[in-house]
Amino acid sequence: MQDVTFVILGATGDLTKRKVIPAIYQLLKEKRIRKLSIIGAARRDLDIKSILTEARSFIKRVNNSIWSKIEKASYYHPLDFYNSEDYEKLKSLIDNLEKKHRLPGNRLFYLATLPEHFDTITDNLAKTKLAKESSGQWSRLVYEKPFGSDLSSARKINHGIGRVFRENQVYRIDHYLGKELVGNISMLRFTNRILEPLWNSLHIDSIQVILKEKLGLEERGNFYDKYGALKDVVQNHMLQILALTAMEAPKKLNGEFIRNEKSKVLKVTEVEDVLLGQFEGYRTEKGVDENSNTETFAALKLKINNRRWQNVPIYLKTGKALKEKETCIYIKFKKATCLLEVCPVESNNLTIRVQPNEGFSLELFAKIPGEAGKVEKIKMDFSHQCVTKHKSPEAYQVLLNEVIKGDQSLFVRNDEIESAWTIIDKVEAKKLKVHIYEKGSDGPKELENFEKKHGMRWIT
Amino acid sequence: MQDVTFVILGATGDLTKRKVIPAIYQLLKEKRIRKLSIIGAARRDLDIKSILTEARSFIKRVNNSIWSKIEKASYYHPLDFYNSEDYEKLKSLIDNLEKKHRLPGNRLFYLATLPEHFDTITDNLAKTKLAKESSGQWSRLVYEKPFGSDLSSARKINHGIGRVFRENQVYRIDHYLGKELVGNISMLRFTNRILEPLWNSLHIDSIQVILKEKLGLEERGNFYDKYGALKDVVQNHMLQILALTAMEAPKKLNGEFIRNEKSKVLKVTEVEDVLLGQFEGYRTEKGVDENSNTETFAALKLKINNRRWQNVPIYLKTGKALKEKETCIYIKFKKATCLLEVCPVESNNLTIRVQPNEGFSLELFAKIPGEAGKVEKIKMDFSHQCVTKHKSPEAYQVLLNEVIKGDQSLFVRNDEIESAWTIIDKVEAKKLKVHIYEKGSDGPKELENFEKKHGMRWIT
Repeated sequence: MQDVTFVILGATGDLTKRKVIPAIYQLLKEKRIRKLSIIGAARRDLDIKSILTEARSFIKRVNNSIWSKIEKASYYHPLDFYNSEDYEKLKSLIDNLEKKHRLPGNRLFYLATLPEHFDTITDNLAKTKLAKESSGQWSRLVYEKPFGSDLSSARKINHGIGRVFRENQVYRIDHYLGKELVGNISMLRFTNRILEPLWNSLHIDSIQVILKEKLGLEERGNFYDKYGALKDVVQNHMLQILALTAMEAPKKLNGEFIRNEKSKVLKVTEVEDVLLGQFEGYRTEKGVDENSNTETFAALKLKINNRRWQNVPIYLKTGKALKEKETCIYIKFKKATCLLEVCPVESNNLTIRVQPNEGFSLELFAKIPGEAGKVEKIKMDFSHQCVTKHKSPEAYQVLLNEVIKGDQSLFVRNDEIESAWTIIDKVEAKKLKVHIYEKGSDGPKELENFEKKHGMRWIT
Repeated sequence: MQDVTFVILGATGDLTKRKVIPAIYQLLKEKRIRKLSIIGAARRDLDIKSILTEARSFIKRVNNSIWSKIEKASYYHPLDFYNSEDYEKLKSLIDNLEKKHRLPGNRLFYLATLPEHFDTITDNLAKTKLAKESSGQWSRLVYEKPFGSDLSSARKINHGIGRVFRENQVYRIDHYLGKELVGNISMLRFTNRILEPLWNSLHIDSIQVILKEKLGLEERGNFYDKYGALKDVVQNHMLQILALTAMEAPKKLNGEFIRNEKSKVLKVTEVEDVLLGQFEGYRTEKGVDENSNTETFAALKLKINNRRWQNVPIYLKTGKALKEKETCIYIKFKKATCLLEVCPVESNNLTIRVQPNEGFSLELFAKIPGEAGKVEKIKMDFSHQCVTKHKSPEAYQVLLNEVIKGDQSLFVRNDEIESAWTIIDKVEAKKLKVHIYEKGSDGPKELENFEKKHGMRWIT
């Protein structure tokens, strides 16, 4: 249990209301936080009440006494990210509130803004010594994704941070790392003796990471059109999932060790083929350029240049406005040497379902009852919803809790971010054509050729 | 679909009514047999109707038209196993019935008698040429278990058979080989790429084969007291299950190949420790000697002297009048190298449930939702009853069908039988003390010491 001062920069945005404040509420409810203060800051002149009212609507079954603790501890401070005087005022406010609420000065600065402001904010926080640590108290900086928009901007931000803060104060958010089944990847791989020895090119045929969205732009056209699928989800969520799936065994399953291994594997990951798409009608969406070539769909073939993954193709697929929403990791094993007269056409596989229907399943072959020498495919399924007595917490709750604990395992390190941008920048540089696809479909028709060309089949 | 003449020797016994005739009925119903004749033979003077009436009570939802086919095709022939004239008469009867029912002369001789009669019956069948094969027709001999009562008697029977019949006419029954989940052992092992590479001393810690019975002697005291648990179930069912679990990969999953491998592994199997028990009150049961030292319980530690199973202890446990009925195979994998702060105490395992609740389950570790770096044990279960659309057929139905098809995979070859007796004879020769245990318990109290001594724990 800790006492924390939360300073949310960009507090008027959706994220604060939808995710950050509800996550703080849960941590308070679960007694991970004892005393707190929340200071929301943003350009607009606003009342904290309006933010809280909206935030409250995203919490199920609000406990009034806990909510009232939040209300009593929350404040708003208008702040122009580019005006250093405003930061001085913020500093006074924080100092006063920490006295008033008897807080020890543990400060969590949450940069819920666009990445273009990261540099300036970081600089000002350093100048005003707002985030200075002294003995017995900590200050941590949380950077929302996207972290930059290409390698050079990310490097610039990292460099700016590195000049004034230590890397162990820095928490780069990729909220997928807070999802239960993403957290489970390493656990499944490294705590199960029956999986670990199989996790290499000797036994694995190919890997698919799929992140399909049913939603379209949802008022984010202005932002999205500058980014596109590659920067919006591949660079971060999908490459992080891949890194966890493909990394070598870390010395320990925590802290720097995991980040070392993720970083290493991203450094040797290379894109071999790409197919981009854009949903029909995208160019007429609000905030989108009428000649936009921004991709809303991407299918990629990657390879990992190390011994473990020699000749194992890695396929990624993502898209907006698709038929269904689904995020999963699919590990297809090689075929067994067949000793039967009638051999199974398929092979064993492990599917980790990140969302929806969190869980994982293993497909095996077993004897068909009553039929000598014949097998059929069976599915051994483990579904979180059906089986486990625990409830999966929201990703942001998980992540904020880790920030408070000071564990950086679930946050992306500077070198990982840069390796991921290196991969994406190379794809962007090709200026590939986007293939138009129907909304609510499975993606562009050209996906069939992609399958044929690589002799593969998407599992979903 | 075949036309078959069934000749059941020892037709008045329980087996004929409970198992053999119901199995023939099912094969007829499932159109595996087209035309047939059933000739029951035994010492007593009897009517076939009384046998059929009893047999019918062991069939669920009898289809009258199929049952009437059986009634019209069934006959009884009194036969003294030791009187060659009786066999001549049997021959005439068979010849006549085959004419009457227009059967081509495919004959299945089922020796449902005690093993002490096997020699004489075999000899007489040969002398009268009752089981002689000519082109386009087959004659097959089915020997019920137990096949002998020790190595020398089994050798004698095998020798007797070998003098007058070819091994490919001989079907030695071990009805456990007809059970679905026993049949599934090789399928699971060899059609799943994710299991096959793990199936050795590198990854497996130990194996348990458990066959627990709740029933006591059930009127079989007279027979059982001469045999005991080692000869009644270990020599056959349990060593067969072990052989299927531990054998090397056969060239193909059928015929001679499987039997070659089972035979090989039995030849290098050796008993290292034994604990015998006898349930309280056994000596006062009907048919049992009042000073009997026959074991109704056995726990064994075995080793297999080959590369695959170096230093992998194999444990067998069986008993009568125990707390519950259960047959299963338990594969305990080694522990994973632990990379967590809090390591799981247990390890992965695969349990194949032969009966009841046919199926198998895999125990894995997965992340505890909401807890970073902590795992819990989860069970991925595949239950035949719940999941598969197929119904498991009765073991005898499976086996009789294989006899008719002429596939010997599910029958025990002469060398396997002899290797199994070699193992058991060595244990018998030790004349070990039997430890008395309470009826309805888990076995003798000394089992605790067995566990301690070997640093193991029975899973059930």
